[in-house]
Amino acid sequence: MDELHEGKSLSASVEERIIQIIKDNELKPGDRLDNEYELAQRLGVGRGTVREAIKALVSRNVLVVRQGSGTFVSPRQGVPDDPLGLTFAKQDRQLALDLLDVRLILEPEIAALAAIKATEGDQKRIESQCDKVEKLILSERDYRREDVALHRLIAQASQNQVITTLVPVIHSSATLNIDLTRNELKENTIRYHRELIRAIRRRDPQGARFAMIQHLAENRRYILLPEER
Amino acid sequence: MDELHEGKSLSASVEERIIQIIKDNELKPGDRLDNEYELAQRLGVGRGTVREAIKALVSRNVLVVRQGSGTFVSPRQGVPDDPLGLTFAKQDRQLALDLLDVRLILEPEIAALAAIKATEGDQKRIESQCDKVEKLILSERDYRREDVALHRLIAQASQNQVITTLVPVIHSSATLNIDLTRNELKENTIRYHRELIRAIRRRDPQGARFAMIQHLAENRRYILLPEER
Repeated sequence: MDELHEGKSLSASVEERIIQIIKDNELKPGDRLDNEYELAQRLGVGRGTVREAIKALVSRNVLVVRQGSGTFVSPRQGVPDDPLGLTFAKQDRQLALDLLDVRLILEPEIAALAAIKATEGDQKRIESQCDKVEKLILSERDYRREDVALHRLIAQASQNQVITTLVPVIHSSATLNIDLTRNELKENTIRYHRELIRAIRRRDPQGARFAMIQHLAENRRYILLPEER
Repeated sequence: MDELHEGKSLSASVEERIIQIIKDNELKPGDRLDNEYELAQRLGVGRGTVREAIKALVSRNVLVVRQGSGTFVSPRQGVPDDPLGLTFAKQDRQLALDLLDVRLILEPEIAALAAIKATEGDQKRIESQCDKVEKLILSERDYRREDVALHRLIAQASQNQVITTLVPVIHSSATLNIDLTRNELKENTIRYHRELIRAIRRRDPQGARFAMIQHLAENRRYILLPEER
C-alpha cells in the first residue's frame, strides 16, 4: 500500500513545511508568501522542489499563484474541489436523493444549534442573505448559489468548526438538478426560509429544526420522479 | 476571484480530460493508465503538460505512480487527504468535541438506516469487523484504526453513496486523542458495539440508533476535561 504513494513523497515534505509556515505565521487568506527563492533558502531545498510543492499546494487549494504578483494563501483554505471524491460518482437522481437524505439528517440539527448559538452578527448576516435569496426568487433568477451561501451562514452560526466546513462540502458535492421554476417550490422556499430565520431570531431550536425539515422535505419531493410525488 | 485561480488553469483541463478517460473506460482502483506518451498523443498536448496533470492527479489521490511500472487509478478514488481542510484548524479539545457532535448527529441515523438496509453480506462483514475490534481491545492494543473501519462498514450498509464517502472523511479529519486505556471506556465500547450489531442483525432501527448514541455519548464524555465529567 505504501509503495503506491511513492509518487507523492518527493515534494510532500516541503508541502507540509510550507503549511507549517502558514500556520506558524498565522497567515490569512490573501496574505502573501515568501517568494520561491526565499522559501528555497529557508527550507534548504532546491527551487525546483519548492516550485513543485507550490504547484501541489495550488491544486490542494492551499495556495494561489498570481502571475507577476506572487504566491498567496488561498481563500479556499485547503478545502478541496471535490472533498467527497464524487467526481467518479454517477451524477444521477439517486446521488441527488442520497445527498438530500444526508442534508435531512444534518441540517435540521444545525438549524437548532444556530437558534441556540447565533450571535447578533450571525443573525443579521443570515437575515440579509435570506432577503437576497428571496429577491432572486421573486425576480425569476437562479438563486442556487446564494441559497448555498445562506445555508453556509446558518452552519457558521452553529459555532461548530466541523459543521462550518462540512456544510459547504456537502452542498458543493452534487448539483440538485431540480426544476427551480415551479411556482409551488418557489413559494415554499420563501415561506420556510422565513420561518427558519424567524425561529433562529427568537432562539427557538425546535422551530428552526422543523422549519428546516419542511424546507428540505419539499426539495426532496422535487427530486423524485413526477409520478412518484 | 477568478484571477486568483490563474495558477490552476494550465494543466487543469488535461486533469479533467484524464478523469473523463477513467470514467469513460470505467477504470477501477489499481487499473493501469496509458503511459505519458500515449496520453500526450491522445489528448493532443505536450508530454510536459501530461506529466504536470498526472502530478496534480496524484496529489488529488486520483492516480498513483509506481516508478518503473506505470500510472494507476488510486485506491483512494479521489478522496483528498484533508477533505474538510482541517489542516489549518487547531487540533485541540474543542475540535475533537465539534467532531464528535457531528458524529452524534449523523451516525445514529446511519445506524438506523443500516438496520433497515443492510444486506446479508453487510451484516457478516460488520460482525466479523466487530469481533476484530473486540479482540484488539481485549488484548490491550490500539483499536482505533479497526474501529474506524467498523463505522465505515456500517455506513456502507446504509446503501447511501454520500454517507459511504462522508463517514471516513469525518473520521479521518481529526484524531480523538482520548485515553483508550481506561477500563470503563473499553468495557462500554465492547458493550455498545455488540448491542449495535445485534440491533442491525434483528433489523431494529431504533435499537441501532440508540446503541450508537450511547456509544458515542460515552466517547464524548472522555473528551471533556476530567473535572467536567
